[in-house]
Amino acid sequence: MTPLSELLLYEASRIQHVKEIIEPFLKKGVVILCDRFSDATVAYQGYGRGIDLRLVESLNSLASQCIKPDVTFLLDCPSDLGLKRALQRNRALNREREGRFEKEKIQFHHRVRRGYLSIAKKEPDRVRVIDTREGEEKVFHKIRQIVDKLIKSSGSGVRSSG
Amino acid sequence: MTPLSELLLYEASRIQHVKEIIEPFLKKGVVILCDRFSDATVAYQGYGRGIDLRLVESLNSLASQCIKPDVTFLLDCPSDLGLKRALQRNRALNREREGRFEKEKIQFHHRVRRGYLSIAKKEPDRVRVIDTREGEEKVFHKIRQIVDKLIKSSGSGVRSSG
Repeated sequence: MTPLSELLLYEASRIQHVKEIIEPFLKKGVVILCDRFSDATVAYQGYGRGIDLRLVESLNSLASQCIKPDVTFLLDCPSDLGLKRALQRNRALNREREGRFEKEKIQFHHRVRRGYLSIAKKEPDRVRVIDTREGEEKVFHKIRQIVDKLIKSSGSGVRSSG
Repeated sequence: MTPLSELLLYEASRIQHVKEIIEPFLKKGVVILCDRFSDATVAYQGYGRGIDLRLVESLNSLASQCIKPDVTFLLDCPSDLGLKRALQRNRALNREREGRFEKEKIQFHHRVRRGYLSIAKKEPDRVRVIDTREGEEKVFHKIRQIVDKLIKSSGSGVRSSG
Protein backbone atom coordinates (compact mmCIF):
# COMPACT_ATOMS: atom_id res chain seq x y z
CA MET A 1 0.00 0.00 0.00
CA THR A 2 1.33 3.49 -0.79
CA PRO A 3 1.61 5.91 2.19
CA LEU A 4 -0.94 8.20 0.54
CA SER A 5 -3.54 5.42 0.13
CA GLU A 6 -3.00 4.48 3.76
CA LEU A 7 -3.57 8.11 4.79
CA LEU A 8 -6.82 8.38 2.80
CA LEU A 9 -8.14 5.09 4.19
CA TYR A 10 -7.54 6.29 7.77
CA GLU A 11 -9.26 9.58 6.99
CA ALA A 12 -12.21 7.84 5.31
CA SER A 13 -12.60 5.67 8.39
CA ARG A 14 -12.37 8.72 10.67
CA ILE A 15 -15.07 10.62 8.77
CA GLN A 16 -17.42 7.69 9.26
CA HIS A 17 -16.44 7.36 12.93
CA VAL A 18 -17.02 11.07 13.59
CA LYS A 19 -20.42 11.09 11.84
CA GLU A 20 -21.75 7.86 13.32
CA ILE A 21 -20.32 7.87 16.84
CA ILE A 22 -18.52 11.00 17.99
CA GLU A 23 -20.87 13.76 16.77
CA PRO A 24 -24.13 12.11 17.91
CA PHE A 25 -22.72 11.34 21.38
CA LEU A 26 -21.15 14.78 21.77
CA LYS A 27 -24.57 16.25 21.06
CA LYS A 28 -26.01 14.14 23.89
CA GLY A 29 -23.32 15.48 26.25
CA VAL A 30 -21.67 12.08 26.70
CA VAL A 31 -18.00 11.85 27.71
CA ILE A 32 -16.14 10.21 24.84
CA LEU A 33 -12.97 8.17 25.24
CA CYS A 34 -11.26 7.46 21.93
CA ASP A 35 -8.13 5.39 21.30
CA ARG A 36 -6.16 7.28 18.62
CA PHE A 37 -7.50 10.22 16.64
CA SER A 38 -6.03 12.98 14.45
CA ASP A 39 -2.73 13.12 16.38
CA ALA A 40 -2.03 9.48 15.48
CA THR A 41 -2.34 10.37 11.79
CA VAL A 42 0.12 13.25 12.17
CA ALA A 43 2.56 10.96 14.02
CA TYR A 44 2.25 7.80 11.87
CA GLN A 45 1.47 9.09 8.38
CA GLY A 46 3.16 12.50 8.73
CA TYR A 47 6.30 11.88 10.80
CA GLY A 48 6.44 8.09 10.30
CA ARG A 49 5.66 7.78 6.58
CA GLY A 50 7.00 11.20 5.67
CA ILE A 51 3.85 12.68 4.08
CA ASP A 52 3.76 16.50 3.96
CA LEU A 53 2.42 17.62 7.35
CA ARG A 54 0.26 20.34 5.78
CA LEU A 55 -1.54 17.71 3.70
CA VAL A 56 -2.03 15.47 6.73
CA GLU A 57 -3.34 18.37 8.77
CA SER A 58 -5.77 19.58 6.12
CA LEU A 59 -7.20 16.08 5.68
CA ASN A 60 -7.36 15.72 9.47
CA SER A 61 -9.43 18.91 9.75
CA LEU A 62 -11.73 17.73 6.98
CA ALA A 63 -12.20 14.28 8.52
CA SER A 64 -12.56 15.33 12.16
CA GLN A 65 -14.80 18.30 11.30
CA CYS A 66 -12.30 20.24 13.43
CA ILE A 67 -13.38 18.35 16.56
CA LYS A 68 -10.54 18.41 19.10
CA PRO A 69 -10.37 16.42 22.33
CA ASP A 70 -10.42 18.39 25.60
CA VAL A 71 -7.52 16.30 26.79
CA THR A 72 -5.24 13.78 25.12
CA PHE A 73 -3.05 11.32 27.01
CA LEU A 74 0.16 10.46 25.26
CA LEU A 75 1.24 7.14 26.78
CA ASP A 76 4.93 7.55 26.16
CA CYS A 77 7.99 5.32 26.48
CA PRO A 78 11.16 4.73 24.45
CA SER A 79 10.37 3.22 21.04
CA ASP A 80 12.14 -0.10 21.63
CA LEU A 81 10.23 -0.68 24.88
CA GLY A 82 6.93 0.23 23.19
CA LEU A 83 7.60 -2.16 20.34
CA LYS A 84 8.57 -4.93 22.77
CA ARG A 85 5.31 -4.39 24.66
CA ALA A 86 3.25 -4.45 21.43
CA LEU A 87 4.79 -7.78 20.44
CA GLN A 88 4.21 -9.21 23.91
CA ARG A 89 0.58 -8.15 23.71
CA ASN A 90 0.21 -9.82 20.30
CA ARG A 91 1.63 -13.04 21.70
CA ALA A 92 -0.70 -12.84 24.70
CA LEU A 93 -3.64 -12.42 22.30
CA ASN A 94 -2.36 -15.31 20.17
CA ARG A 95 -1.97 -13.05 17.15
CA GLU A 96 0.25 -14.89 14.71
CA ARG A 97 1.36 -11.99 12.59
CA GLU A 98 2.80 -8.61 13.38
CA GLY A 99 0.75 -5.56 12.43
CA ARG A 100 1.67 -3.25 9.54
CA PHE A 101 3.38 -0.80 11.88
CA GLU A 102 5.05 -3.33 14.15
CA LYS A 103 6.87 -4.71 11.14
CA GLU A 104 8.55 -1.34 10.53
CA LYS A 105 12.15 -0.70 11.49
CA ILE A 106 12.94 0.98 14.81
CA GLN A 107 13.75 4.24 12.93
CA PHE A 108 10.09 4.43 11.89
CA HIS A 109 9.00 4.15 15.51
CA HIS A 110 11.53 6.79 16.56
CA ARG A 111 10.00 9.18 14.02
CA VAL A 112 6.46 8.41 15.20
CA ARG A 113 7.45 9.06 18.80
CA ARG A 114 9.17 12.31 17.82
CA GLY A 115 5.94 13.28 16.02
CA TYR A 116 3.79 12.67 19.07
CA LEU A 117 6.21 14.52 21.34
CA SER A 118 6.31 17.54 19.06
CA ILE A 119 2.50 17.73 19.05
CA ALA A 120 2.65 17.62 22.86
CA LYS A 121 5.22 20.40 22.86
CA LYS A 122 3.02 22.55 20.62
CA GLU A 123 -0.16 21.92 22.63
CA PRO A 124 0.92 21.28 26.22
CA ASP A 125 -2.49 22.17 27.67
CA ARG A 126 -4.29 19.54 25.67
CA VAL A 127 -1.67 16.82 25.35
CA ARG A 128 -0.44 15.33 28.65
CA VAL A 129 2.61 13.15 28.31
CA ILE A 130 2.44 10.16 30.65
CA ASP A 131 5.67 8.25 31.21
CA THR A 132 4.61 4.62 30.98
CA ARG A 133 7.93 3.19 32.15
CA GLU A 134 6.54 3.55 35.65
CA GLY A 135 4.03 0.70 35.42
CA GLU A 136 0.28 0.48 35.18
CA GLU A 137 -0.63 1.53 38.73
CA LYS A 138 1.20 4.83 38.55
CA VAL A 139 -0.01 5.53 34.99
CA PHE A 140 -3.60 4.90 36.06
CA HIS A 141 -3.21 7.16 39.10
CA LYS A 142 -1.79 10.05 37.04
CA ILE A 143 -4.51 9.88 34.40
CA ARG A 144 -7.19 9.57 37.06
CA GLN A 145 -5.96 12.74 38.76
CA ILE A 146 -6.04 14.75 35.52
CA VAL A 147 -9.48 13.48 34.52
CA ASP A 148 -10.95 14.13 37.98
CA LYS A 149 -9.63 17.67 37.95
CA LEU A 150 -10.96 18.28 34.45
CA ILE A 151 -14.43 16.97 35.29
CA LYS A 152 -14.55 19.08 38.45
CA SER A 153 -13.43 22.25 36.69
CA SER A 154 -15.87 21.92 33.81
CA GLY A 155 -18.95 20.77 35.73
CA SER A 156 -20.98 18.20 33.84
CA GLY A 157 -20.23 19.63 30.42
CA VAL A 158 -16.88 17.90 29.85
CA ARG A 159 -16.25 16.55 26.39
CA SER A 160 -13.38 14.15 25.96
CA SER A 161 -12.44 12.32 22.81
CA GLY A 162 -8.84 11.59 22.16
CA MET B 1 -21.49 5.85 3.97
CA THR B 2 -20.95 9.62 4.05
CA PRO B 3 -20.19 11.29 0.68
CA LEU B 4 -16.79 12.36 1.99
CA SER B 5 -15.79 8.82 3.02
CA GLU B 6 -16.88 7.59 -0.40
CA LEU B 7 -14.71 10.26 -2.04
CA LEU B 8 -11.63 9.33 0.01
CA LEU B 9 -12.09 5.61 -0.69
CA TYR B 10 -12.22 6.26 -4.45
CA GLU B 11 -9.11 8.43 -4.22
CA ALA B 12 -7.26 5.85 -2.11
CA SER B 13 -8.10 3.21 -4.71
CA ARG B 14 -6.96 5.52 -7.53
CA ILE B 15 -3.60 6.25 -5.89
CA GLN B 16 -2.93 2.52 -5.72
CA HIS B 17 -4.14 2.02 -9.30
CA VAL B 18 -1.91 4.81 -10.61
CA LYS B 19 1.18 3.55 -8.75
CA GLU B 20 0.74 -0.14 -9.54
CA ILE B 21 -0.69 -0.10 -13.06
CA ILE B 22 -0.84 3.23 -14.85
CA GLU B 23 2.58 4.73 -14.05
CA PRO B 24 4.61 1.56 -14.72
CA PHE B 25 2.84 0.92 -18.06
CA LEU B 26 3.06 4.55 -19.16
CA LYS B 27 6.81 4.34 -18.58
CA LYS B 28 6.94 1.33 -20.90
CA GLY B 29 5.08 3.31 -23.56
CA VAL B 30 2.01 1.09 -23.46
CA VAL B 31 -1.39 2.44 -24.59
CA ILE B 32 -3.66 2.45 -21.54
CA LEU B 33 -7.43 2.10 -21.71
CA CYS B 34 -9.10 2.89 -18.41
CA ASP B 35 -12.80 2.71 -17.55
CA ARG B 36 -13.51 5.77 -15.35
CA PHE B 37 -10.84 8.02 -13.87
CA SER B 38 -10.71 11.53 -12.32
CA ASP B 39 -13.65 12.84 -14.40
CA ALA B 40 -15.93 10.20 -12.86
CA THR B 41 -15.07 11.51 -9.39
CA VAL B 42 -15.88 15.08 -10.41
CA ALA B 43 -19.20 13.92 -11.91
CA TYR B 44 -20.32 11.45 -9.21
CA GLN B 45 -18.86 12.83 -5.98
CA GLY B 46 -18.75 16.51 -7.04
CA TYR B 47 -21.90 17.07 -9.09
CA GLY B 48 -23.80 13.96 -7.91
CA ARG B 49 -23.08 14.02 -4.16
CA GLY B 50 -22.60 17.76 -3.96
CA ILE B 51 -19.06 17.82 -2.54
CA ASP B 52 -17.17 21.10 -3.12
CA LEU B 53 -15.61 20.81 -6.60
CA ARG B 54 -12.35 22.40 -5.46
CA LEU B 55 -11.91 19.69 -2.84
CA VAL B 56 -12.69 16.97 -5.39
CA GLU B 57 -10.25 18.48 -7.86
CA SER B 58 -7.42 18.86 -5.38
CA LEU B 59 -7.80 15.24 -4.22
CA ASN B 60 -8.01 14.16 -7.87
CA SER B 61 -4.70 15.87 -8.64
CA LEU B 62 -3.10 14.29 -5.60
CA ALA B 63 -4.39 10.81 -6.46
CA SER B 64 -3.75 10.87 -10.20
CA GLN B 65 -0.34 12.52 -9.81
CA CYS B 66 -1.73 14.98 -12.38
CA ILE B 67 -1.82 12.26 -15.06
CA LYS B 68 -4.42 13.19 -17.69
CA PRO B 69 -5.66 10.97 -20.50
CA ASP B 70 -4.84 12.05 -24.08
CA VAL B 71 -8.44 11.39 -24.99
CA THR B 72 -11.56 10.61 -22.99
CA PHE B 73 -14.73 9.18 -24.50
CA LEU B 74 -17.88 10.27 -22.76
CA LEU B 75 -20.47 7.65 -23.69
CA ASP B 76 -23.50 9.87 -23.32
CA CYS B 77 -27.25 9.35 -23.37
CA PRO B 78 -30.23 10.71 -21.41
CA SER B 79 -30.08 9.65 -17.74
CA ASP B 80 -33.23 7.52 -17.80
CA LEU B 81 -31.98 5.52 -20.79
CA GLY B 82 -28.57 5.06 -19.14
CA LEU B 83 -30.15 3.83 -15.93
CA LYS B 84 -32.41 1.45 -17.86
CA ARG B 85 -29.38 0.04 -19.65
CA ALA B 86 -27.46 -0.39 -16.39
CA LEU B 87 -30.34 -2.34 -14.87
CA GLN B 88 -30.68 -4.49 -18.00
CA ARG B 89 -26.96 -5.25 -17.82
CA ASN B 90 -27.28 -6.23 -14.15
CA ARG B 91 -30.11 -8.60 -14.98
CA ALA B 92 -28.12 -10.08 -17.87
CA LEU B 93 -25.20 -10.65 -15.47
CA ASN B 94 -27.59 -12.16 -12.91
CA ARG B 95 -26.73 -9.47 -10.39
CA GLU B 96 -29.44 -9.57 -7.77
CA ARG B 97 -28.96 -6.16 -6.26
CA GLU B 98 -28.66 -2.70 -7.71
CA GLY B 99 -25.36 -0.89 -7.24
CA ARG B 100 -24.95 2.07 -4.87
CA PHE B 101 -25.38 4.56 -7.68
CA GLU B 102 -28.16 2.76 -9.53
CA LYS B 103 -30.28 2.98 -6.39
CA GLU B 104 -30.10 6.78 -6.49
CA LYS B 105 -33.03 8.87 -7.73
CA ILE B 106 -33.09 10.06 -11.33
CA GLN B 107 -32.18 13.60 -10.12
CA PHE B 108 -28.82 12.24 -8.95
CA HIS B 109 -28.17 10.82 -12.43
CA HIS B 110 -29.19 14.10 -14.05
CA ARG B 111 -26.60 15.89 -11.91
CA VAL B 112 -23.89 13.34 -12.78
CA ARG B 113 -24.62 13.72 -16.48
CA ARG B 114 -24.55 17.50 -16.19
CA GLY B 115 -21.18 17.14 -14.47
CA TYR B 116 -19.72 15.03 -17.25
CA LEU B 117 -21.09 17.35 -19.93
CA SER B 118 -19.64 20.42 -18.25
CA ILE B 119 -16.19 18.78 -18.10
CA ALA B 120 -16.57 18.06 -21.83
CA LYS B 121 -17.50 21.67 -22.46
CA LYS B 122 -14.43 22.90 -20.56
CA GLU B 123 -12.05 20.48 -22.27
CA PRO B 124 -13.48 19.77 -25.74
CA ASP B 125 -10.11 18.68 -27.17
CA ARG B 126 -9.68 15.91 -24.63
CA VAL B 127 -13.25 14.87 -23.94
CA ARG B 128 -15.19 13.56 -26.95
CA VAL B 129 -18.90 13.19 -26.36
CA ILE B 130 -20.28 10.10 -28.11
CA ASP B 131 -24.05 9.90 -28.44
CA THR B 132 -24.84 6.30 -27.51
CA ARG B 133 -28.49 6.43 -28.56
CA GLU B 134 -27.24 5.45 -32.00
CA GLY B 135 -26.39 1.87 -31.15
CA GLU B 136 -23.19 -0.09 -30.66
CA GLU B 137 -22.06 -0.24 -34.29
CA LYS B 138 -22.09 3.50 -34.82
CA VAL B 139 -20.53 4.16 -31.40
CA PHE B 140 -17.73 1.73 -32.16
CA HIS B 141 -17.13 3.31 -35.57
CA LYS B 142 -16.93 6.85 -34.16
CA ILE B 143 -14.49 5.87 -31.41
CA ARG B 144 -12.42 3.86 -33.85
CA GLN B 145 -12.06 6.88 -36.15
CA ILE B 146 -10.90 9.15 -33.35
CA VAL B 147 -8.43 6.59 -31.98
CA ASP B 148 -7.00 5.84 -35.44
CA LYS B 149 -6.48 9.53 -36.11
CA LEU B 150 -4.86 10.06 -32.72
CA ILE B 151 -2.48 7.14 -33.14
CA LYS B 152 -1.51 8.31 -36.63
CA SER B 153 -0.91 11.90 -35.52
CA SER B 154 1.17 10.96 -32.50
CA GLY B 155 3.25 8.17 -34.04
CA SER B 156 3.97 5.33 -31.63
CA GLY B 157 4.10 7.54 -28.54
CA VAL B 158 0.35 7.72 -27.84
CA ARG B 159 -0.70 7.48 -24.22
CA SER B 160 -4.33 6.87 -23.47
CA SER B 161 -5.88 6.33 -20.09
CA GLY B 162 -9.36 7.53 -19.46
